[in-house]
Amino acid sequence: MALKSWLSIPKGSAFSLANIPFGIITTKNDPVRHPAVAIGDHALDVTIFADCGGFKSLAEFPKDKLHVFSQPSLNAFARLGRPVHRAVRLYLRDVFRDDTPFPDVLRDDQALRDSALKPLSEVEMHLPMEIGDYTDFFAGRNHAKNAGTLFRGAANALNPNYNHLPVAYHGRASSVVVSGTPLRRPWGQVLPDPTAKTPVFKPCARLDVELEMGMFLCRGNSLGEPIAVDEAEDYIFGFVLMNDWSARDIQTWEYVPLGPFNAKNFGTTISPWVVLADALEQFKGQGLPDEVELQPYLRESRRENTIALNLEASLITADGSSTTLIRTSSKNLLWSWPQMIAHHTVAGCNVRTGDLFGSGTISGSEPGSYGSLLELSEGGKKPIILENGEERKFLQDGDTVFITGSAMTADGEVVGFGECVGRVLEPMSRVSK
Amino acid sequence: MALKSWLSIPKGSAFSLANIPFGIITTKNDPVRHPAVAIGDHALDVTIFADCGGFKSLAEFPKDKLHVFSQPSLNAFARLGRPVHRAVRLYLRDVFRDDTPFPDVLRDDQALRDSALKPLSEVEMHLPMEIGDYTDFFAGRNHAKNAGTLFRGAANALNPNYNHLPVAYHGRASSVVVSGTPLRRPWGQVLPDPTAKTPVFKPCARLDVELEMGMFLCRGNSLGEPIAVDEAEDYIFGFVLMNDWSARDIQTWEYVPLGPFNAKNFGTTISPWVVLADALEQFKGQGLPDEVELQPYLRESRRENTIALNLEASLITADGSSTTLIRTSSKNLLWSWPQMIAHHTVAGCNVRTGDLFGSGTISGSEPGSYGSLLELSEGGKKPIILENGEERKFLQDGDTVFITGSAMTADGEVVGFGECVGRVLEPMSRVSK
Repeated sequence: MALKSWLSIPKGSAFSLANIPFGIITTKNDPVRHPAVAIGDHALDVTIFADCGGFKSLAEFPKDKLHVFSQPSLNAFARLGRPVHRAVRLYLRDVFRDDTPFPDVLRDDQALRDSALKPLSEVEMHLPMEIGDYTDFFAGRNHAKNAGTLFRGAANALNPNYNHLPVAYHGRASSVVVSGTPLRRPWGQVLPDPTAKTPVFKPCARLDVELEMGMFLCRGNSLGEPIAVDEAEDYIFGFVLMNDWSARDIQTWEYVPLGPFNAKNFGTTISPWVVLADALEQFKGQGLPDEVELQPYLRESRRENTIALNLEASLITADGSSTTLIRTSSKNLLWSWPQMIAHHTVAGCNVRTGDLFGSGTISGSEPGSYGSLLELSEGGKKPIILENGEERKFLQDGDTVFITGSAMTADGEVVGFGECVGRVLEPMSRVSK
Repeated sequence: MALKSWLSIPKGSAFSLANIPFGIITTKNDPVRHPAVAIGDHALDVTIFADCGGFKSLAEFPKDKLHVFSQPSLNAFARLGRPVHRAVRLYLRDVFRDDTPFPDVLRDDQALRDSALKPLSEVEMHLPMEIGDYTDFFAGRNHAKNAGTLFRGAANALNPNYNHLPVAYHGRASSVVVSGTPLRRPWGQVLPDPTAKTPVFKPCARLDVELEMGMFLCRGNSLGEPIAVDEAEDYIFGFVLMNDWSARDIQTWEYVPLGPFNAKNFGTTISPWVVLADALEQFKGQGLPDEVELQPYLRESRRENTIALNLEASLITADGSSTTLIRTSSKNLLWSWPQMIAHHTVAGCNVRTGDLFGSGTISGSEPGSYGSLLELSEGGKKPIILENGEERKFLQDGDTVFITGSAMTADGEVVGFGECVGRVLEPMSRVSK
């Protein structure tokens, strides 16, 4: 049976007692970034909570580490490791339970409730982590196949390496932004038509969304020391939703031979609340099946290791009309997060706390479940009809992309991410010399 | 005429009065990382120097910013901007001149000399900057042509985009290491032979060096606001030498379609002293000529904007025998650093102080000037005969790669980098599941 809280949590809230995600907030009265936890329609200001002795009853918490709850990012908390995250999450859940074993901590302390619990509508969200490196994988095989067909034709859709290793590229950490940050349509070199040999320089005309999951690491390895796939779970802090905005016309011209660059580095949007790895544990199942025998370093003892979330992306036009573009599931991934970690480090690369991995675009096998406009519009050939009658092949200025993701427990509690949202601003009128 | 110093500077030292490069050191007695300047065979401990009022006579230095000289990286100093770097560099040069206008500052202060001047042999060098993002360009057209021929055949050597834009990919910041750090030979997936369809997992057999220059940024832009090519010079802090180690067999299998990943991210070595942009200003000349008309955003008002340094790479075998592999010039680049900055930001990507750019491998037009073993051995077909009679197509365990770079002023003073050196360790005996 679902747990009940003494705090009013709206039915269907993404931030149920089964979730307890962490984020970084500021408020009008406290403009210094610090951690919070989302619960229903509220944020628990974890800095105030910790300062007022909120964690005194949590024996597992190292008393000399309380400063992690007053940092401007979650990195210090993440660094404490999975057992501490687990203890903190379960403790906070218990603090909010109707039948809390710790009534004095918050439920019966009206003064602390007044100071530490803030309506979500009154907090501003910021990047949850200080990101060292950002790596974007390509684990959505349906997407890889669809996009490969459009870029290179059906015969060469999946490259020979695809099923053997988690293909990935290094992305741009500096331009990862938190949900709500508008992004300017990029300028770039594009070919005026597919047969042209000389590019023109103009605003991107094929601006796209890529629906992804993101994962933050809580632990690093030393250079030269790979992380074994069955130990990789310990390195996972938690998850966010991600929109890996893509300029398809720039990408087509620039990406051979070294991969996407300006087509992707103008911005990547993530949802602000990090859903801890433990909160998603119960939603693991089978991902896409392997089509080849894997190298031993990629073979997991646990076979059902893919998180299945329901993901949805809507397009909201400037007039406020909303159309659901994508409904898919994050089970549409060939590689699990531990496999990605194992592959990323197998040649010796070191990862660090705060590093961000993207899953790659997640597409189902049916058109309505494709995770990008490139696929939904069949490479810009077939317009999508919106609720207000407008057509889209790619994004227009003023369009907002709105991504949500969640799963439901057996008890009917929702574990979700809140929103990952971004609006497209018109391009600069000119890019001067 | 060359300036003389009251400090004995060996003839031909890379750290002449014309240089004054900055680095981060520790010493036996001071294990906390802090800035220093290299001068001849000595390091001037800038923290001690600043603490003892060394900068009092430098009017241009903002008095509330002296803390930048006691930071564990050069980022804070870099952030002060080109005019401050220029003033500090010229001031320190003047402090060391025989006819210094500031004799009391150091020359005649034996106590400060004793505490602040340390033999280079007694300091340990560390990464000079806290690196946000690392981007590796591909601006060495001779290399691009040679490598392209080996990867894809002569007809497809240079991709259609090559001459139109500075091709680049995002590299891995976490695994950039300072000169002297040994690197373990990576394991990875490779094809057992060119016709194979299924990879094997084994230690890299085609481990390579890539001779590059690196550039650190001292200033950032806001997301969505490109940096104009003629303003980009203000964003350059200084330069290092770079060895972008590459696992060619892993690269061949993994790099299509998203670019190199594990083939490069196991380590990138940089020289420890950052030669400030001003110190190299006088060595600018013509780079490789454009073969197409450039888009306006890449057209520079200044035509001769390529730094010409003499670069050299040697291979030292485990028995200590040294063979010069490469002699080339950094003028073999198609794109200037300002062009790279302009292109990197033209779609709106933000750069930050401390970001590192690599030039891409620098090859001349003759075999002895090729910047990688891939090119020198013609793709592993032609062995290179070493001084001790051994042969190499690629690097063996125990091999050390030793890179130097310098230029000489009209007055016969050398401006150089010291060394960028790394040794190859044997691979792990196994990479466990």
